[in-house]
Amino acid sequence: MRKTDRIGLFTDYYELLMAQGVFFNGNPECEFYAFYRNNPRHSAYSILSGISELLEDIADFRFSQDDISYLSGLGVFRKEFLKYLEGFSFSGEILSFRDGDVIFPYEPVLIIRGTFCECALLETFVLNCLNFPSCVATKAARVVESAKGKPVFEFAPRRAPFLESANCASYSAYLGGCCATSNTLAGRIYDIPVFGTMAHSWIMNFDSESDAFLSFYGMYPDNCTFLIDTFDTLKSGIFSAMKVGAAMRKDGKTFNIRIDSGDLSYLAKECRRILDSNGFLDTKICLSNDLDESIISQLYLENTPADSFGVGTKLVNQSSLGFVYKLSRISKNGRFVNRMKISSSKEKMTLPGSFQVHRFYGKDGIMCADMIESVGKFAWSKQYLLHHPVKDEAFVLKDFDRCEEKLVQRVFQGNLTADVPTATQCRDFCRNALALLHDSHKRLLNPHIYKVSLGECIKAERESIVAGFK
Amino acid sequence: MRKTDRIGLFTDYYELLMAQGVFFNGNPECEFYAFYRNNPRHSAYSILSGISELLEDIADFRFSQDDISYLSGLGVFRKEFLKYLEGFSFSGEILSFRDGDVIFPYEPVLIIRGTFCECALLETFVLNCLNFPSCVATKAARVVESAKGKPVFEFAPRRAPFLESANCASYSAYLGGCCATSNTLAGRIYDIPVFGTMAHSWIMNFDSESDAFLSFYGMYPDNCTFLIDTFDTLKSGIFSAMKVGAAMRKDGKTFNIRIDSGDLSYLAKECRRILDSNGFLDTKICLSNDLDESIISQLYLENTPADSFGVGTKLVNQSSLGFVYKLSRISKNGRFVNRMKISSSKEKMTLPGSFQVHRFYGKDGIMCADMIESVGKFAWSKQYLLHHPVKDEAFVLKDFDRCEEKLVQRVFQGNLTADVPTATQCRDFCRNALALLHDSHKRLLNPHIYKVSLGECIKAERESIVAGFK
Repeated sequence: MRKTDRIGLFTDYYELLMAQGVFFNGNPECEFYAFYRNNPRHSAYSILSGISELLEDIADFRFSQDDISYLSGLGVFRKEFLKYLEGFSFSGEILSFRDGDVIFPYEPVLIIRGTFCECALLETFVLNCLNFPSCVATKAARVVESAKGKPVFEFAPRRAPFLESANCASYSAYLGGCCATSNTLAGRIYDIPVFGTMAHSWIMNFDSESDAFLSFYGMYPDNCTFLIDTFDTLKSGIFSAMKVGAAMRKDGKTFNIRIDSGDLSYLAKECRRILDSNGFLDTKICLSNDLDESIISQLYLENTPADSFGVGTKLVNQSSLGFVYKLSRISKNGRFVNRMKISSSKEKMTLPGSFQVHRFYGKDGIMCADMIESVGKFAWSKQYLLHHPVKDEAFVLKDFDRCEEKLVQRVFQGNLTADVPTATQCRDFCRNALALLHDSHKRLLNPHIYKVSLGECIKAERESIVAGFK
Repeated sequence: MRKTDRIGLFTDYYELLMAQGVFFNGNPECEFYAFYRNNPRHSAYSILSGISELLEDIADFRFSQDDISYLSGLGVFRKEFLKYLEGFSFSGEILSFRDGDVIFPYEPVLIIRGTFCECALLETFVLNCLNFPSCVATKAARVVESAKGKPVFEFAPRRAPFLESANCASYSAYLGGCCATSNTLAGRIYDIPVFGTMAHSWIMNFDSESDAFLSFYGMYPDNCTFLIDTFDTLKSGIFSAMKVGAAMRKDGKTFNIRIDSGDLSYLAKECRRILDSNGFLDTKICLSNDLDESIISQLYLENTPADSFGVGTKLVNQSSLGFVYKLSRISKNGRFVNRMKISSSKEKMTLPGSFQVHRFYGKDGIMCADMIESVGKFAWSKQYLLHHPVKDEAFVLKDFDRCEEKLVQRVFQGNLTADVPTATQCRDFCRNALALLHDSHKRLLNPHIYKVSLGECIKAERESIVAGFK
């Protein structure tokens, strides 16, 4: 867990080695950007999350006296460089997409401008801030999509990788569309609704299942979701719940049930039938146990009478999104020179220079394409020739209605340029962004691929650098 | 990220609901235990990690005034209960296996004894502490096994889920056998060796690849591992490295290379051939880029001339181990009553009572079986009848030499009973534990399954509870 309030040492060691090397070579101004190459499995989009944390914590990216002593003890760093680190605080510029926005492979979602040392030392922190949160937010958005408007509760903290990441997962899941979290700490920190029912241990604490339900009712008369699978859902659980429910009915109260094991579709249908035939038409059914978007879709296909879903493990047990962070230009003798990584596989080539992402919307208001273009080279026009970022393909973009710049300045000269939005603001932003994405891109399986393309100037710049190297 | 030094709110909300319910019903003493059901894919064992963090942080599991105000504002909790939380600190007992030990499905690795409220409120924290660290440690142990004695460096922080979990991943990877980390902060916190080479951005910072290598040599004459794949490994990188290497040779220095993209086996072989034919016989080859145990094994099968490996993403991009936490006994009217979850699927049934895990070793010193037995029921004998925890199978254990109790008291009356071991101590413990595990269990694919069994008393207790329910 975090043992320090200053997080400067949270940097891959090679960054410190390189930073020292560059420090004694003039430490030029430069620009780095972050992007990812592949969406999580089956998805045509991702949801950005983690920018807010990055912006809030960037001021902590400093080195304490202890850190400096530790580095000094390694016997590798010289006094002048250690003195530089001692006074370090990020003084550059950050541009980014907003948390909650829809993002696509290859497009720069974050740009950092500063000295080489500043930019390099931040790499690990920046990528760590983006990779996991964006992955969880994307998964949550897809799970919520699959639930077709029914509430999805996030139950992930026990399976999340450590405490901070559990809080961050709760934030990201809420941002992606979940309606509440089981994580009380995240509820407090981010002002997210908290939700909970009961565990098997509650039932096992009593001598009988109906005693357990009755006691819970005594405590929470207006919030009774009974967990009915501790012993046997259909032989015992549902009948214990209805027994207590009958007493509750006299008080004008209703109860809900949660099923957390077994064949959820079969059990939910049987429970619905039993409940209905006993007049418990208001009782709602919450399902949980390793759910994700595929299983929820399957439950819908089978007309399972579910009213809400609890998701946990599969929100947090995923591959990270694979964001990378690359140098795109550097100052040499007072002027900037564009730089890119050249590779025999075009997927590994990076973008040179300084750029902006332009998102185009059709006359129906729906997103139709994103274009990456060199800064200062974009001019308003009725149509554009857009180039695939990796393949030798191009298409003409026309019939659009408006276009917006996605990379917005967030930090200037080391200071935030505006307040960091709240979790709820980011969640609203996400809902609005998703509403402008065509349904065909939101399909869970084989979605239509969204077009992210290079403008003509950045494409020409890239080709000229490759030609110059050969 | 953690916004508070007190982590009491890091609990699933339903635990607070249940705790309040139990609080007004006498808050009985009870016992919970943690276990997992399945090893990560293909493995026959797991490595425990996270216990040290749990022990170190359990004193932080308290509620601040802010936490109490937040809970009070939810309108669900009564004054007396909030007062109880205000004074909360864990005052019970914890027994556990040690970090670094080899563990198997179904065996209790951690026991918590205390009041129901204490035990319930800790669930999320306990599981969160164990799930991810153990998963990373297990993966690391398997990767290190596949590297057959060659060093494995951990390069995971940028892909790990958030900062704390990156530190925890570095700790766990080291514990599992990695020799160093790229995470400088983890290096400092846990006193782990740090390691780093250079990034593509270092190369791109210069006008030519050989300028970049030469400058790095100037800075770090004794630590030159050149990254040779920025432009073209075989046409450019290896020759730039040798050009600088030739100058270094005159100073009596050597260099190493790192390859981070492309067909690693092919490139390493070609580089080895070129290096050898130019007299750079001492130059070592470090490989990285999404490596894991399968890929390293494949590299060995192809006789790839690799000298060390960097692993990152795949150490941290995995499913959590799936630890669960279950009630096993509770006091009723002054005496303990055993409790278990009954289920139609035997895998979901839990263990009743209070138990100990006994590990048996053969005359060759090698582990031969683990037996879970009720506390007080184990007696020394020449042979035991052991029962499969899930299936109706039994076998006779004999010809063993010694046996040890794995669950050791770590906390008593809320206080640590001994110092928490260092990362290096846990790593040594892990190496020793793995040395006593037969090679057939360490096979990467289709390993021999290790026997974890129930003793006769706990099996009889389980059957009697099931019979009593029916």
